[in-house]
Amino acid sequence: MNSINQLISDIKKLDFSMFQKDFLLTWEKSDQEILATLYMAQLLKELHGKNISCKVFESGLAVSQFRDNSTRTRFSFTSAANLLGLAVQDLDEGKSQIAHGETVRETSNMISFLADVIGIRDDMYLGAGHTYMQEVGRSLDDGFKEGVLNQRPGVVNLQCDIDHPTQSMSDLLHLKNFFGGDLKNLKGKKIAMTWAYSPSYGKPLSVPQGIIGLMTRFGMNVTLAHPEGYSLIPDTLEVAKKNAKASGGNFTVTGSMDEAFKDADIVYPKSWAPYHVMQQRTQLLQKKDNDGLKDLEKQCLANNAKFKNWECTEEKMKLTKGGKALYMHCLPADISGVSCKEGEVAASVFERYRADTYREAGYKPFIIAAMMLSMRFKNSAEVLEKIIKENKKRLS
Amino acid sequence: MNSINQLISDIKKLDFSMFQKDFLLTWEKSDQEILATLYMAQLLKELHGKNISCKVFESGLAVSQFRDNSTRTRFSFTSAANLLGLAVQDLDEGKSQIAHGETVRETSNMISFLADVIGIRDDMYLGAGHTYMQEVGRSLDDGFKEGVLNQRPGVVNLQCDIDHPTQSMSDLLHLKNFFGGDLKNLKGKKIAMTWAYSPSYGKPLSVPQGIIGLMTRFGMNVTLAHPEGYSLIPDTLEVAKKNAKASGGNFTVTGSMDEAFKDADIVYPKSWAPYHVMQQRTQLLQKKDNDGLKDLEKQCLANNAKFKNWECTEEKMKLTKGGKALYMHCLPADISGVSCKEGEVAASVFERYRADTYREAGYKPFIIAAMMLSMRFKNSAEVLEKIIKENKKRLS
Amino acid sequence: MNSINQLISDIKKLDFSMFQKDFLLTWEKSDQEILATLYMAQLLKELHGKNISCKVFESGLAVSQFRDNSTRTRFSFTSAANLLGLAVQDLDEGKSQIAHGETVRETSNMISFLADVIGIRDDMYLGAGHTYMQEVGRSLDDGFKEGVLNQRPGVVNLQCDIDHPTQSMSDLLHLKNFFGGDLKNLKGKKIAMTWAYSPSYGKPLSVPQGIIGLMTRFGMNVTLAHPEGYSLIPDTLEVAKKNAKASGGNFTVTGSMDEAFKDADIVYPKSWAPYHVMQQRTQLLQKKDNDGLKDLEKQCLANNAKFKNWECTEEKMKLTKGGKALYMHCLPADISGVSCKEGEVAASVFERYRADTYREAGYKPFIIAAMMLSMRFKNSAEVLEKIIKENKKRLS
Repeated sequence: MNSINQLISDIKKLDFSMFQKDFLLTWEKSDQEILATLYMAQLLKELHGKNISCKVFESGLAVSQFRDNSTRTRFSFTSAANLLGLAVQDLDEGKSQIAHGETVRETSNMISFLADVIGIRDDMYLGAGHTYMQEVGRSLDDGFKEGVLNQRPGVVNLQCDIDHPTQSMSDLLHLKNFFGGDLKNLKGKKIAMTWAYSPSYGKPLSVPQGIIGLMTRFGMNVTLAHPEGYSLIPDTLEVAKKNAKASGGNFTVTGSMDEAFKDADIVYPKSWAPYHVMQQRTQLLQKKDNDGLKDLEKQCLANNAKFKNWECTEEKMKLTKGGKALYMHCLPADISGVSCKEGEVAASVFERYRADTYREAGYKPFIIAAMMLSMRFKNSAEVLEKIIKENKKRLS
Repeated sequence: MNSINQLISDIKKLDFSMFQKDFLLTWEKSDQEILATLYMAQLLKELHGKNISCKVFESGLAVSQFRDNSTRTRFSFTSAANLLGLAVQDLDEGKSQIAHGETVRETSNMISFLADVIGIRDDMYLGAGHTYMQEVGRSLDDGFKEGVLNQRPGVVNLQCDIDHPTQSMSDLLHLKNFFGGDLKNLKGKKIAMTWAYSPSYGKPLSVPQGIIGLMTRFGMNVTLAHPEGYSLIPDTLEVAKKNAKASGGNFTVTGSMDEAFKDADIVYPKSWAPYHVMQQRTQLLQKKDNDGLKDLEKQCLANNAKFKNWECTEEKMKLTKGGKALYMHCLPADISGVSCKEGEVAASVFERYRADTYREAGYKPFIIAAMMLSMRFKNSAEVLEKIIKENKKRLS
Repeated sequence: MNSINQLISDIKKLDFSMFQKDFLLTWEKSDQEILATLYMAQLLKELHGKNISCKVFESGLAVSQFRDNSTRTRFSFTSAANLLGLAVQDLDEGKSQIAHGETVRETSNMISFLADVIGIRDDMYLGAGHTYMQEVGRSLDDGFKEGVLNQRPGVVNLQCDIDHPTQSMSDLLHLKNFFGGDLKNLKGKKIAMTWAYSPSYGKPLSVPQGIIGLMTRFGMNVTLAHPEGYSLIPDTLEVAKKNAKASGGNFTVTGSMDEAFKDADIVYPKSWAPYHVMQQRTQLLQKKDNDGLKDLEKQCLANNAKFKNWECTEEKMKLTKGGKALYMHCLPADISGVSCKEGEVAASVFERYRADTYREAGYKPFIIAAMMLSMRFKNSAEVLEKIIKENKKRLS
C-alpha cells in the first residue's frame, strides 16, 4: 500500500477547491487542481486494481448527454459513475421533448433533481459546445439558488469544441507514468502534436487544443505541426504560449511534420479539420444545408488528400529521439491498411505502441471519477482516506 | 429534523393499504392513501435534501416502458428508482421481439422475474393506455399466483389516456407547500384548469382529467374551461362532480377562459386535443392511415387557431384574485415568443412563475418513489422510520 | 432453508474451475461444471425468493452487446447483473464509432477497463457469432496480460450461431425441477427436439443445437426431427452423438414429427432455418445484397409452407407418452391463431403449458447469474455460503 499512502499524502498537501465547480477547460483550473485530479485518478485506479471499493455515493445519478457518437468516452463515463456508486441515465434528445423549443435552462433543471453529475459531449459545432456547457452550468447555479434543486450537480466536459479535458488529463497521467512516475521528468521533453492525414473529415479540434493547452504547463517543449490551413482556434494558441512561458517550457508551431518529429520524445499524430472548414460546417449545419455540407466534405477531403504524406511511418519515427519516441493517440486511430487504406499511422508503428495507447485510454474512467469526486465532495482527500481505511472489497 | 418527525408521525396515523397494488388512477385510491403517498413523497424529498440515504432495496429492477417521448417523466422515474436502490431497465419495443405478435401477458411476465416496479407511459390512444396497464396488472397477478414470479411487481401509471397521477400528485404537493404546508388551506381555493392555445395538436387529455379528478377531493372550487369541442372524457367529469360533492368543494365547467380566471387562486392553462379528435386519431393510428392523420392534424390545427386568444396573458392574470394567482404547468409549456410564436402563456407570465413551475416538477421523482415504496413494502411507515434511524449518509 | 443447505453442500462436493473462463458452448464445460452452474442458479433463485440479497459486487459493469433484437435475454442479463450488484452498460454499435474500422481487439479492451462481464448475442451469421466471441475472449486475455486491464472480464454467450447455453441450461433446470428435482430422473426420458412450421424465416439454429448438445449428457433419449433440408450444423450432431454414447443415452435423427413425438416424455417443437439457407443468407448479408435476401426469404417461406403440418397439435400430443408429454419452448412461440395464422403450436396446447414455459424462461436470469459468479470468483461456493450466512434482506 506504499504508493497508495504516498498518493494520499501528496493529495493532502495540495491546495485545491473544485467543490461545486464544473470541469470545462483545463486552463480554468489551477496547477494544484490539475495535480489533485491527476493524483486522485491514479489513486482510484490503484484502489480498483487492489479490489478496494471506491463507492462513495449510496445513490445518485450521473446524467450523460452525447451529441455525437461515442464508445470509449461513454464507457469511461459509465465506468467512473459506477465506480463511485452513481447510476447513469442518458439524456437522449431523440427520445425527449427537447426538440420542441424547450430552453436549456428548463432541461438542465428537469434532469437534475437527483443528479450529482452531468457529463456532456458536444463537439459538432465550433463556438457552440463550450457555450452550451456554460449555459447548463449557469442554469444549475440558478436552480440551486432558487431552491429548485436540493444540490448543485457538477458538469464534466466530455469533449467540446475547445477542449477535451478528460482526454488530455488521461494523456498526461499516461506520460507521467510512462516517464518514471514523476511529472518533473516531463520537464524539457519534446512532444510533437501534429496533424496527420485521414480519409475522413470534420474531426474536432479539441484534442490538439487540449494537448497544447495542458502539456505546456509542465515545462515541456510542445511543438504543434500542421499543413497550411489546418490551424486551431487562435485563443487556444495564446493559452499554450502563456502556459509555456509560465512553466519554463516552450511552444512552437511549424508547417512540417518532420521538423516536429525531429528529436521528439513523444509524438501525437492525429487528424483534425481546418478551423475555417469547421466554421463553414457549423453554418451549414445550422442552415441544414445538406448539399452545402456534401460539397464542403468533398472539398475538404480533396484538400486532405494533398497531405497524405503526413503519416506517422517507420521512417518518420526514425527522426525522433533515438528513433524511440512514445507514440500517442486518443483512439480510434486511422491505421493504414487496417482501418483504412491510407491513414494517420503505419500499421507497424501502431502495433508496436498498441498496448501503450490502450493503457493511455485506460486512465480516462479514473480521470472522470476524480473529477466527479472533487466536484461533489468538499474534502475529497478525506473521503479517499476513509475508503482506504474501510478497505471494503469490491468483489466480496 | 422536526418536519421529518412530524411527517413520520402523520403517516403512521393514516390507514392505507397499497401493498402489491398498482397505482393507475388517483380516484381508485382512498383519501388516506392519497395523503400517505403525499406525505411519504415530502418526507423522501426532505431526507434527500438532508443527505440521508433512502436506499431500501439492496437490488431489484424498475422497468420503464415509454410508448411516447419523455424527458422529465423518464428522469423522474429513474431518479425515484435510484433513490430507493432499484436499477432501471427500459423496455424498448423497437429493440424487442414484441412486435411479432407476443401477448401482453407473456411480455409482462418475461420482464418481471426480478422486477419490483413497472412504470408505463401510454397516452397515445384513447381507450388504450389504461386498458393496457390493467392487462399488465392482471398478467402479473396470474404470474405471481402460478409461481412464475417470485414477487408481484407494482405498476405505476406514468401517464395514460385517462389520468396522469404522478403529475397531479406532484401538483397537489406543490399546492400544499405553496399555501402554507397544510392541505386544509386549499379548502375553498379556486383553481382554473383551462384549455390554452398551442400550435401543436394531439396533446393528451390526462393532465386536465387528472387535475379535476384530484383537486376536487380537497374542497377546492375547480373550474374547467375550454372552447366548444374540447371537452374531456365524460366519465372523468363525473368523477370530478362526485369528488367535489363529497369534499364540500365545487366543480364547474365553462366555455370562457376569463370566467375561469376570475378570482382564481390558481390557474393551470394548458392545451389538449378535443376528445373526438383523439378518438378519430386513435382509429387512424390503428389503421396506419397516414394521409388521414395528416388531414386530421391540419383540421385540428386550423380549429385550434380559432382560439388563439386562449392565452395566459398579463391581462388575463389581472382577472385572478388580487392579480396574483399561482400559475401552474406540467411543462414544457408553449411560451409565446420563446418556444413558439403564439402559445399557451405569455413570456413575462411564465418567467415570473418559472421557478415555481420547476419546483412543481421537482416533486415528481419523490411522488413516484413514494408510490414504489408503498406498493412493495407492507409497512412503508416502518421502513421510513428505519432509514431515518439509520441515518446513513447518501454522500459518505 | 433445507434446500438451500442441501444445494450449498452439493455445490461444494463438485470439482469445477470456471474462474476467468468464458461460457461459450456447454460442451466445452465438464459435467461437474454444468452441474455447478445448474445448482448455483437454483440456489440463487431460492435466495431471491426468500428475499436474501445476492449482491456480491460492490460495483462493476456488465456490458451487453446485442447484434439482434431481444427482450427476454436482455432482461435476463440485466436481472442477473443487478442481482449480483453489477450495472449494465449496453454497447450499442449504432451509437458508437465501431463501424469506422475499429478492431475487435480495440473495442474489447476499451469497454473493459471496469467491466466484470460481457454478454454477447450474435446469432445472425452462420460461422460468425462464435468466432466473434472467441476473438473478444482472446483480446481480453491479451489486455489482461499486457496490463491494460486490471481484471479479466468473462464473456457470456447470450446466443451465437452454434449454441444458446443460457437457454439450454434454463431448459435443463426446468426439466430437473419438473421431474422431481433430481437429474437422475431424466435418465431414459425421451425428448423430441423437432422442427415446427413458422411463417417467418431465418430463425437461428442455436436452440436445437444447444438442446441436442446438452440433453444428451444426461442419459436422455434425444430425438431430433426435421423435414428434409432443415438439418443442423454437422459438428453439433457429432457432439450430440458423442455425448449420448458417454452418458448411456441415445441420439437419433428422423424426418418424421410423429415418430419423434411417439412416446416422448418431453416435446420441444420449434422452427429454424435450414442450414444451407443460413449459409446463403450469411453471404448475402455480407454482400449487402438486399434483392438476393428478399428472393431467399421468398423461396424459404415457400419451402417452409410445404411443412405446415409440422405443428404441435392436440392430435400430435396424443402420440406422446400417455398423451401428456411436457411441452417446452424458448419463447416467443408462433401460436396458431394467436400470434400468427398458422404456426408452431396449437393455441390449446400452448395454453395448457403456458405457465410451464414461463417458469422455464424464469430460470434464465439465475443461470446467467451463476455463470457470472463462477467466472469472476475463484471460490463461488464460499461466496454463496457467505451471503447465506450474512442473510441480508434484499428489501429492507
